[in-house]
Amino acid sequence: MRIIVQKYGGSSVATADHIKAVADRVARAHESGLSLVVVVSAMGKTTDRLLRLAHEVSSEPSPREIDQLLATGEEQSVALLAMALHDRGVDAISLTGPQAGMRAEGRYGSGVITEIRPERMLSLLKQGRVVIVAGFQGMNALGDVMTLGRGGSDTTAVALAAALEAERCEIYTDVDGIYTADPRIASGARRIPVISYEEMAEMAWRGAKVMHPRAVELGALYNVEIHVRSSFAFAESGGTVILGGDKLQRIETRETVAGIVHDLDVARITLSGIRTGPGTLSRIFSPLAERGISVDVIVESAPKEGTSDVAFTVTRSVYPEAKEIAEEVAGSLGGAVEGEIELGKVSVVGTGMLNRPGYAAKMFATLAEARIPIRMVSTSEIQVTCVIPEEKVEEAVRLLHRAFELEEREDV
Amino acid sequence: MRIIVQKYGGSSVATADHIKAVADRVARAHESGLSLVVVVSAMGKTTDRLLRLAHEVSSEPSPREIDQLLATGEEQSVALLAMALHDRGVDAISLTGPQAGMRAEGRYGSGVITEIRPERMLSLLKQGRVVIVAGFQGMNALGDVMTLGRGGSDTTAVALAAALEAERCEIYTDVDGIYTADPRIASGARRIPVISYEEMAEMAWRGAKVMHPRAVELGALYNVEIHVRSSFAFAESGGTVILGGDKLQRIETRETVAGIVHDLDVARITLSGIRTGPGTLSRIFSPLAERGISVDVIVESAPKEGTSDVAFTVTRSVYPEAKEIAEEVAGSLGGAVEGEIELGKVSVVGTGMLNRPGYAAKMFATLAEARIPIRMVSTSEIQVTCVIPEEKVEEAVRLLHRAFELEEREDV
Repeated sequence: MRIIVQKYGGSSVATADHIKAVADRVARAHESGLSLVVVVSAMGKTTDRLLRLAHEVSSEPSPREIDQLLATGEEQSVALLAMALHDRGVDAISLTGPQAGMRAEGRYGSGVITEIRPERMLSLLKQGRVVIVAGFQGMNALGDVMTLGRGGSDTTAVALAAALEAERCEIYTDVDGIYTADPRIASGARRIPVISYEEMAEMAWRGAKVMHPRAVELGALYNVEIHVRSSFAFAESGGTVILGGDKLQRIETRETVAGIVHDLDVARITLSGIRTGPGTLSRIFSPLAERGISVDVIVESAPKEGTSDVAFTVTRSVYPEAKEIAEEVAGSLGGAVEGEIELGKVSVVGTGMLNRPGYAAKMFATLAEARIPIRMVSTSEIQVTCVIPEEKVEEAVRLLHRAFELEEREDV
Repeated sequence: MRIIVQKYGGSSVATADHIKAVADRVARAHESGLSLVVVVSAMGKTTDRLLRLAHEVSSEPSPREIDQLLATGEEQSVALLAMALHDRGVDAISLTGPQAGMRAEGRYGSGVITEIRPERMLSLLKQGRVVIVAGFQGMNALGDVMTLGRGGSDTTAVALAAALEAERCEIYTDVDGIYTADPRIASGARRIPVISYEEMAEMAWRGAKVMHPRAVELGALYNVEIHVRSSFAFAESGGTVILGGDKLQRIETRETVAGIVHDLDVARITLSGIRTGPGTLSRIFSPLAERGISVDVIVESAPKEGTSDVAFTVTRSVYPEAKEIAEEVAGSLGGAVEGEIELGKVSVVGTGMLNRPGYAAKMFATLAEARIPIRMVSTSEIQVTCVIPEEKVEEAVRLLHRAFELEEREDV
């Protein structure tokens, strides 16, 4: 069997007509002789609507009941897609996450897939049936449904592709691939035909919304070839292929950056003049982690007279809570807290940057020339990120896209 | 443990505010020390909305996928009710039908409960928790969810009450009990405080919409005391108690009819001049049953010269299909078919009618006096039903309600 896993996001199944269009695409793939497992998200804004209802009936809905509630969104989509396929003469069957053998554990609302029991899916595929699986959900040890948190449907698809040893995992979304920058900002932005897991994961973490980094990392772990495609384009061509290791080497050995990504939802918190010593950072970040607050860029200044400054960024929605926690900690360490919202991030990502410090310098120079102040810097092997004022982000994306010659390059 | 099963229908949980009102009622019952299992239907018109979606994506949605889709309606209600109870300090937990151990078999869309594994519910009740169970669904041998068809949530509640050996099963609905006639038609109609299973089942079959006869019959089988109450009234009093056997004997020995019920959705089909013989009726009604068409009143005329007339009633929605089948059969039996829609039924129901043929005579006389033509008659031990023109039904209900002295009687 040549098994392909396809995943359609919420915007691809938002209405009955969207579902029929997806059914057309699935039917075509089925006719071409592939064995198909199709992962579907909840229709359009269903999840938001259900969450709103939950907050109408309860001031603090329990995570277990939220999961019980939200899981129904995907369960509706899979049943509807199966029906639409029947109408096209395709023998499809819908499965909830538990029915598909998806096992999960962890906290409700952010479950982690622990195991997939593929027997039922494999036996259905052998009968020539198309298997439609509800994304974003699994069953825990209690027999209860558990949602997988952000990026859960992408993660379901990639995990299924790994468990079923699928030829590839196709992620259908509302854009036709990964771009060198956001085309709405940088008019010269081009689609990236092939990208490595590492680059894609960095781009996803740094602001590219197309695929969740968690799913990309899972793909890397099991070496699942991932294709990102538009669910609205008729042609099967185009898109971006994400792969790694040997496969990537054979396809290209790129020596440049892959793209520019940005994020407009950034706030900074700085603890200044705090006493430093072993365990200082842990005293700051453990209470944040306990409250489930994700911290992005972290910068610590060199200590001076036994004190130093520690700055970090968070998303704006958690800024007030994070600042409150920071104030408590700073108080106990003899320092003060200062913060700033209305910031953004811009990142240059690419394996081409490995061992090439010149790229960071070029980024700083480009921003300096345009008098864009850099508030914080974070670097890793394959990316450089600068935190800058929000109103300068679009300009920075355009300038960097040009400076790194992303417009002119022909890389396939 | 004193276990009570409560059931709330779709209109009782139609909005977030309705759900909160149900939570208030459940919380009060919980505070009074009862162990509660609460069965909930899908919110308001959810089931209709989902069915509409199904017919938008498919011309003939598969029964399995319809069940997968519809089951989500109840699953949303139970999660929301559990959340609302948490807000009131009540430790509630929602369970889908499969999670609650409801096993079912039969055809998708009309599953039959075969077994209830109450272990999880009992252990939760012992911990003092309120258990909220999705009505209308169970799990079949494949591990798939299956809906229980019409009256499924009432049936779930009564079956749970039997399995958990509950003290009683309370059915909350939008009316405050069973009436001697429809109060919108007969202004003197009174609530019936106590009624037997047999009478209630007859009334339900003959048109009383408050409770499904299937649930009543299950209650009779396991001797479950059923209370029908309004979910909108604050007081716990009122309503109608349905019971049987010894319990009923002790409470009352009524010698009169219980009430007048009617049904406006009736069509008649008559096969005339068909050759009679052994197996004739089976040749007529087997093909109808195979197509899932329920037949209500059946009348066969005395055979004359080897032929006879057979007439039966169906609901209007299946009339065209039933007539087509009847025409085929009649053709092969040398007869003709004639039909009539725009009919209604009016029935007089009560154990007081046992061995009292006078009641049927009184009914015919009352209708004759008002010049209401009787098209068909059907009688059983505890009811007499007349099929009459639809436009005469309301008048007939009023006249019979008065003739059987249902307005004046004081029976509790």
